[in-house]
Amino acid sequence: MDLIIDGWFHERGVLWPGQAMSLKVKKVLDHHRSDFQDILVFESESHGNVLVLDGVIQVTERDEHAYQEMIAHLPLYAHPNPKKVLVIGGGDGGVLREVAKHPGVEEIIECEIDEGVINVSKKYLPSLAKGYDDPRVSVKIMDGAKFMDENQDSFDVIITDSSDPVGPASVLFETPFYNAMYKSLREGGIVCTQGECMWLHLDLIRPLIDSIGKTYSTVEYAYTTIPTYPSGQIGFIIATKGRGECKKPERQPSEEVQDGFQYYSTELHEASFVLPAFARRSIFGKK
Amino acid sequence: MDLIIDGWFHERGVLWPGQAMSLKVKKVLDHHRSDFQDILVFESESHGNVLVLDGVIQVTERDEHAYQEMIAHLPLYAHPNPKKVLVIGGGDGGVLREVAKHPGVEEIIECEIDEGVINVSKKYLPSLAKGYDDPRVSVKIMDGAKFMDENQDSFDVIITDSSDPVGPASVLFETPFYNAMYKSLREGGIVCTQGECMWLHLDLIRPLIDSIGKTYSTVEYAYTTIPTYPSGQIGFIIATKGRGECKKPERQPSEEVQDGFQYYSTELHEASFVLPAFARRSIFGKK
Repeated sequence: MDLIIDGWFHERGVLWPGQAMSLKVKKVLDHHRSDFQDILVFESESHGNVLVLDGVIQVTERDEHAYQEMIAHLPLYAHPNPKKVLVIGGGDGGVLREVAKHPGVEEIIECEIDEGVINVSKKYLPSLAKGYDDPRVSVKIMDGAKFMDENQDSFDVIITDSSDPVGPASVLFETPFYNAMYKSLREGGIVCTQGECMWLHLDLIRPLIDSIGKTYSTVEYAYTTIPTYPSGQIGFIIATKGRGECKKPERQPSEEVQDGFQYYSTELHEASFVLPAFARRSIFGKK
Repeated sequence: MDLIIDGWFHERGVLWPGQAMSLKVKKVLDHHRSDFQDILVFESESHGNVLVLDGVIQVTERDEHAYQEMIAHLPLYAHPNPKKVLVIGGGDGGVLREVAKHPGVEEIIECEIDEGVINVSKKYLPSLAKGYDDPRVSVKIMDGAKFMDENQDSFDVIITDSSDPVGPASVLFETPFYNAMYKSLREGGIVCTQGECMWLHLDLIRPLIDSIGKTYSTVEYAYTTIPTYPSGQIGFIIATKGRGECKKPERQPSEEVQDGFQYYSTELHEASFVLPAFARRSIFGKK
């Protein structure tokens, strides 16, 4: 457990050389190796319980809403009538919790390859894992690409809530995976994927967006602020099949649903697509 | 120099307990105490040269543009015709560099209390300190409140580029300082100040905005992403004297000027005022 030194967890990764986020540890709650990765859960001094996979922070209870709400509601509110939703990854359950806030959604399937993540989340991250309680949710412990191959032309929205492109998740950042999602989408469908950070990974984001733009009808990039992800933000790649851009939502949350949101709003939906000049220029080549 | 451990600078501060940003140090370039504060400059592995005051990162060459451009251009483009601009703090020169990009500005005065910051910036942060080269710039080494007391009803835009409300800058986050700025503004003028972080300091931001809203015509809050500030973002308090809200800019940069920006754009100006639901609710009490 050499990432905890003098009581602080240090997140040092090959994807953000020379910089690190540190959180003060109150108590290690679980640390073991699953079939796929190293799983660590600790209670922090300032950010509630924290889930770490292969040394990288996935969730803290304090700021997780920023990520879960945005990766779920950007595609769902951009779709006029999503009925069937696929979540790939997302073992902590937070994305399921958000998808379940859409009353019109009839079926939510999660494909998570590592059951170990689901198990620790149910134990230590109950405010996220309550997403599993919704009766519309079913869980497949299997490879997302394989599941999509067996379920073509099936989903209105596909959300890929993955870890970084190192280790088991690296294939999720490649064109073949986006082609598989495209085939598994219904006409008019939308995918939204974890798209790394505009402050760190433009060299990864740009070619991926260029490549999948040849298949999808539209490809856009949005982002959310989130203090415990590297550089304090994470982006989303949002692509459509037979549909226009997703910058303006097609639907709005009811007042009651909006009151329950900590991060998302209709105004923020639109603002999240407005990138800093350096990122817009680099990704889209526009001035 | 106990903030550098095993070759990493750790930014641990009372305003962000339990969390810390760390940067790998290549070489310490300067470390001394001025009359006001501890000044450290180091070359980092990943973020160029870094200026640290009293243990807190003020500037890294890699991401400084996000802060300098936004704190300068939000008020300047919200003003139809700014002629005379006061910068309080900002000893590194980066805000001067941005203000000087407005050809209509005739006079730029900087009040910096600590000449030590100007000196190290001229030596180690030349891409910021080049702001001092503009012939419209004059520098006063003195207390900003005292200068404003002697210059009432004088400025179209006042920008306060301060460190955090601990130590010498703490008075800059109090109502009397905002009252002093109000008196030093011309009718139709705009102030823009460093407004701490919505992810950390809502309990500081909310009462300050409530309080100064009694004096100013409008008070708003905007933010920028910036990886090396605590939690990866910093906000701006923007308040006006005899003018409406600043969310929509009154002017747009020329194409040539826009091409030189790394962060700001007209679209981002508007988007930067759209806060996450939790922050909007806390600061403004709106749903």
